[in-house]
Amino acid sequence: MTDGYTIAVVGAGLVGDRLVSELRRRDFPIKELRVLARSARRSTLAGEEFEVGVAEPEAFEGVDFAFFAGTEGEKGAAVQLAQEAISRGAVVIDNGSDFRMDPDVPLVVPEVNADALEDHNGLIANANCSTITMLLPLSPLVDRFGARRVVVSTYQAVSGSGRGGVEALEDGREDVYPRPIAGNAIPMIGDVGDDGYTTEETKMRRESRKILGLPDLEVFATAVRIPVHTSHSESVYVETEREATLAEVLETLREAPGVQLFEDPEDFPTPLEATGDPSTFVGRVRVEGNVISFWCVSDNLLKGAATNAVQIAESLINVKV
Amino acid sequence: MTDGYTIAVVGAGLVGDRLVSELRRRDFPIKELRVLARSARRSTLAGEEFEVGVAEPEAFEGVDFAFFAGTEGEKGAAVQLAQEAISRGAVVIDNGSDFRMDPDVPLVVPEVNADALEDHNGLIANANCSTITMLLPLSPLVDRFGARRVVVSTYQAVSGSGRGGVEALEDGREDVYPRPIAGNAIPMIGDVGDDGYTTEETKMRRESRKILGLPDLEVFATAVRIPVHTSHSESVYVETEREATLAEVLETLREAPGVQLFEDPEDFPTPLEATGDPSTFVGRVRVEGNVISFWCVSDNLLKGAATNAVQIAESLINVKV
Repeated sequence: MTDGYTIAVVGAGLVGDRLVSELRRRDFPIKELRVLARSARRSTLAGEEFEVGVAEPEAFEGVDFAFFAGTEGEKGAAVQLAQEAISRGAVVIDNGSDFRMDPDVPLVVPEVNADALEDHNGLIANANCSTITMLLPLSPLVDRFGARRVVVSTYQAVSGSGRGGVEALEDGREDVYPRPIAGNAIPMIGDVGDDGYTTEETKMRRESRKILGLPDLEVFATAVRIPVHTSHSESVYVETEREATLAEVLETLREAPGVQLFEDPEDFPTPLEATGDPSTFVGRVRVEGNVISFWCVSDNLLKGAATNAVQIAESLINVKV
Repeated sequence: MTDGYTIAVVGAGLVGDRLVSELRRRDFPIKELRVLARSARRSTLAGEEFEVGVAEPEAFEGVDFAFFAGTEGEKGAAVQLAQEAISRGAVVIDNGSDFRMDPDVPLVVPEVNADALEDHNGLIANANCSTITMLLPLSPLVDRFGARRVVVSTYQAVSGSGRGGVEALEDGREDVYPRPIAGNAIPMIGDVGDDGYTTEETKMRRESRKILGLPDLEVFATAVRIPVHTSHSESVYVETEREATLAEVLETLREAPGVQLFEDPEDFPTPLEATGDPSTFVGRVRVEGNVISFWCVSDNLLKGAATNAVQIAESLINVKV
């Protein structure tokens, strides 16, 4: 092992904060930790004071890993700066959505497809938070029972929209969502495409296909914002190729990496309990023939973003997954 | 027409309030309106002062229609009093869940199966709020395209649990839900059965089958409480027998009784907008081959309860549907 790596965290918002906290909590070997943003300022991330530098090409000199925080639905800084960082020798791990479907860019959830990291060109994409949450339980089920189609409805937290989303919920800020979110449910995350699906819903379909390596998997998603601060929940229905029993499904989920299973049918995970934990929580498991239904929840800022990004870097340096 | 009917509203909670307001708003021909509850008191319902009487057998003397408000998940007063009311000549319309699956009791959503009213024994059941919301758009789609299976995830408001639910959301009352509901999502409405489905989810399956007259229809529901005051939302996926086009589906929904359709793919209904309106709002319509997906919202206290109950009475006296 080296004496540690030089890290750049690009973005000083909620995901930037969680990237710092996950790098520290997981003891990532760090020689130097830089935080970069649009403008220079003094900022506290994860309880630590930083002299935030300007995210410009020269700031990536000497950087080994550059984590771009991205923001749900917005073009990330990675579009401008990823190649600058890569040309200076950094590996870029982008939490934004700009490069995920690029065939030259691995799209990785380490528990599912760490092998995709074997061949990269300096840029690796972190999957969408909603995709990650669903794939942790889905992937081992698909491996064991096969999958014909997935129907998923999401219950997404406002922190997925960054601090603005939190302000919309807590202070009634009006320029973040198309309707008030306090006491409401908004079935529109991102823009609507020609097929009527939103960008968020299309991400869940396309990213699942790419990560699972199943280009024809049918995924029908409906993405909904609800008045929850943090942690996305999802109601997932899967039609499998082979019939499964409840015992087999529970056994599979019990052993699934990154999953914490609620086996007691009367118990269940909720966003309040999942927040602050890097696991994906799964409960309400029901099995009827070749239909498996479950409820899953994970912290959209941790496993949905920062934790997954740090795990990608860990996989690259073979520390652990 | 007579000089109006003698009406008893049993229950002075949120649904009782809406029963009074819907009877007044729809100009139901009323000679006398009695409100009955567990104890006598002076109470304001829908802005009107009532001397609330005790719900006891004698209170139903001379009553033509007795509306029992019921409460989601609780045994209703109808179990004790419905036969007493019927034996005194009343027709009972029960919003509770105790009699819905009784083969001798019609379970009615007037826009869908008013014909079931032709043969009753004095007791008619109002369907579950979540079932009604979904069936308004679903029924005409099933009629036109056939249905193989329905997958539905709900986003249910706290007023479905009565005033206690509202207090749980607004004041943190702790004895109503198994977890805090403010800033949270609770995937457990009612009790869990042996198959892992909750009573609320099983109601959606069984009631849909009975009302649509499709005893084998596959309905996979996941029922979730979210921090919304009033109006239930649902994400619905339908596999039809025949392939449909978006134009055909929109045409069907545009003409569907009781439905207000949001046709613009960028627009959508939300609980805040649906509250106070007796319609079921439908939007986010997507069609791919034999899969139709949509989002629907309706006021759980109005079309989900009071409006539907009053419509049943109207059908019986042939005023209007």
